[in-house]
Amino acid sequence: MLPVKYELIKQCKQSGARLGIVHTPHGDIHTPVFMPVGTQATVKAMSPAELKDIGAEIILSNTYHLYMRPGEKLVEKAGGLHGFMNWDRPILTDSGGFQVFSLADLRNIKEEGVTFKSHIDGSKHFISPEKAIEIENALGADIIMCFDECLPYPCEYDYAKNSLYRTIRWAERCKESHAKPDTQALFGIIQGGMYRDLREESVREMVKMDFPGYSIGGLSIGEPKDIMYDVLDWTAHLLPENKPRYLMGVGSPDCLIEGAIRGIDMFDCVLPTRIARNGTVFTSKGKVVVRNAEYAEDFSPLDDECDCYACKYFSKAYIRHLFKAKEILGARLTTIHNLRFLINLMADIRQAIMDDRLLDFREEFYRKYGYSDESK
Amino acid sequence: MLPVKYELIKQCKQSGARLGIVHTPHGDIHTPVFMPVGTQATVKAMSPAELKDIGAEIILSNTYHLYMRPGEKLVEKAGGLHGFMNWDRPILTDSGGFQVFSLADLRNIKEEGVTFKSHIDGSKHFISPEKAIEIENALGADIIMCFDECLPYPCEYDYAKNSLYRTIRWAERCKESHAKPDTQALFGIIQGGMYRDLREESVREMVKMDFPGYSIGGLSIGEPKDIMYDVLDWTAHLLPENKPRYLMGVGSPDCLIEGAIRGIDMFDCVLPTRIARNGTVFTSKGKVVVRNAEYAEDFSPLDDECDCYACKYFSKAYIRHLFKAKEILGARLTTIHNLRFLINLMADIRQAIMDDRLLDFREEFYRKYGYSDESK
Repeated sequence: MLPVKYELIKQCKQSGARLGIVHTPHGDIHTPVFMPVGTQATVKAMSPAELKDIGAEIILSNTYHLYMRPGEKLVEKAGGLHGFMNWDRPILTDSGGFQVFSLADLRNIKEEGVTFKSHIDGSKHFISPEKAIEIENALGADIIMCFDECLPYPCEYDYAKNSLYRTIRWAERCKESHAKPDTQALFGIIQGGMYRDLREESVREMVKMDFPGYSIGGLSIGEPKDIMYDVLDWTAHLLPENKPRYLMGVGSPDCLIEGAIRGIDMFDCVLPTRIARNGTVFTSKGKVVVRNAEYAEDFSPLDDECDCYACKYFSKAYIRHLFKAKEILGARLTTIHNLRFLINLMADIRQAIMDDRLLDFREEFYRKYGYSDESK
Repeated sequence: MLPVKYELIKQCKQSGARLGIVHTPHGDIHTPVFMPVGTQATVKAMSPAELKDIGAEIILSNTYHLYMRPGEKLVEKAGGLHGFMNWDRPILTDSGGFQVFSLADLRNIKEEGVTFKSHIDGSKHFISPEKAIEIENALGADIIMCFDECLPYPCEYDYAKNSLYRTIRWAERCKESHAKPDTQALFGIIQGGMYRDLREESVREMVKMDFPGYSIGGLSIGEPKDIMYDVLDWTAHLLPENKPRYLMGVGSPDCLIEGAIRGIDMFDCVLPTRIARNGTVFTSKGKVVVRNAEYAEDFSPLDDECDCYACKYFSKAYIRHLFKAKEILGARLTTIHNLRFLINLMADIRQAIMDDRLLDFREEFYRKYGYSDESK
């Protein structure tokens, strides 16, 4: 009995995008979906009650960070991540691979696993595929990820190829060591750098292992967006139709639309919450840097088309004041807004799929949002 | 027509404490009341919706800070403080006197007013009684304060006496220049240092001016609590029975109880929110420093007798993790808890007055809370 099942509701006749439901032990997720990131068992500046208010159906948390602090054993004692952070809807954890390769120091990659130093206290650690799954089993998310190597961009072909086959062998070991296949769905990760044959090989090998879902990793790491879209075009259609497809680390409005058009069901990214804490918000007319002096006496909401708590009750002038005065409520309001903006965008995307007009929707959105080369 | 009226419901037969209602243009306040402090037009880490959830009936904001940033003219354009910060219940503003005398640099006190430098950018400013009231009129709080000199502790008798008479003259000028007596109630402030005759003289002169309410200032500035209680004993009973009495800057649980027993109706203090942001909470069994290692695996709530959002849904272990990981939600949860704790305490005090047993309640509370000399 698989813990996670994908139900395809319909495909957009205009774009091929997929409307679906991912059924999980903690409830259903309507896809395409954007997943807010709760790195350290909390979506920064948000409460779980607020996440529900804005309509978040699933959140992501980071295995590397929770392993470092407070430790997966503590989280397990607290009833897993759901109990620890009081979130009774679905959770997805990454494997820690991305952080080991981007945050930690002095890593040493061997067939057995990776040795690295903590970004917090410099202590030495070793994570293998088995160890990553052991941690993810303790954390208890509904969806967990295989331990993989995340390549830099650009990356030489030979290195990418060797790495890919190691990531495939690691995926086999992850699957083998997964102790809770009935309650946690382990997703395979498609890697292979920006090389078409390696990406296709990755899909073939991962699909052979018959995971309950697949993610596409190693993207949005500095490559031009055209290349990212190419990789999606090469890979997504090769993935099984009856399994969810998750594009890791991608969350700007244009990428969400382009990803959906290319058959992606799930997305996550720290971008919307991170820029929010710096005073930048998405709006229906493009990005707004609310800290800017031009908003000092602007008593209109961040986005007059938004229905979030920040837009219903507060002005740009007030939110700018909160940022200038370094008040916590500022980051809270912009975070609520950015997440609600993306959740509303995903609902619009789903409606456009239902109406077979996602390509039209894209054009309308880009025109209104004022997409320039800068933002694309 | 006075904008603020005090209705005495009953006096505790055991203690003499007053149960009452302060009627204001933005609603009723049940007294004795604790007022959360929103220094910069926001109660730090809280949203207005959360303040309502925990039962806050009135909040305080600081004239000095709002004058500095974003400026009272901007707040006025936004519809006053109520509109600017989206708070439709009563607001009280202080006069800025306390901050001018404690935060600002290089002050120069003359009969006309005070010259000082901004704590933000070092710019030079001058505030007179007339200017303070002009700012408070622009901010638009329901209850506003006279501009006064706050003495240090200890303070020589002669200085305290001269200062007191100047504060009395300033109060006359404040009253004279108050442009909105029909919508904003201007309270007089009792000063006089720790000298009984000066405090009594202060009450006599202020009462002559027939303010709609009176505050007792210059306390909780480093003096032993016994002296503070002496000052309350000397002054409160001399104040008119039909006007609210506000003890400024006092908010520890014991002081709230002792103040109520001495006939005080209103209290404010940054202490509960400030210590919350450092990871310290009030509980029914005394203070808890939730950052401490002893709570790392404590899965019980901050206070098992509390009904706040933090205590209903989160453990000490989780909140400690949030503090260790420097996550905003940590300060949010402890702030919600500390404010709810004090609001519940005030409700208990009001019930004890109703039942004519506030002295008994004090004994029970101190025993349970484990009051020591340290905390007293």
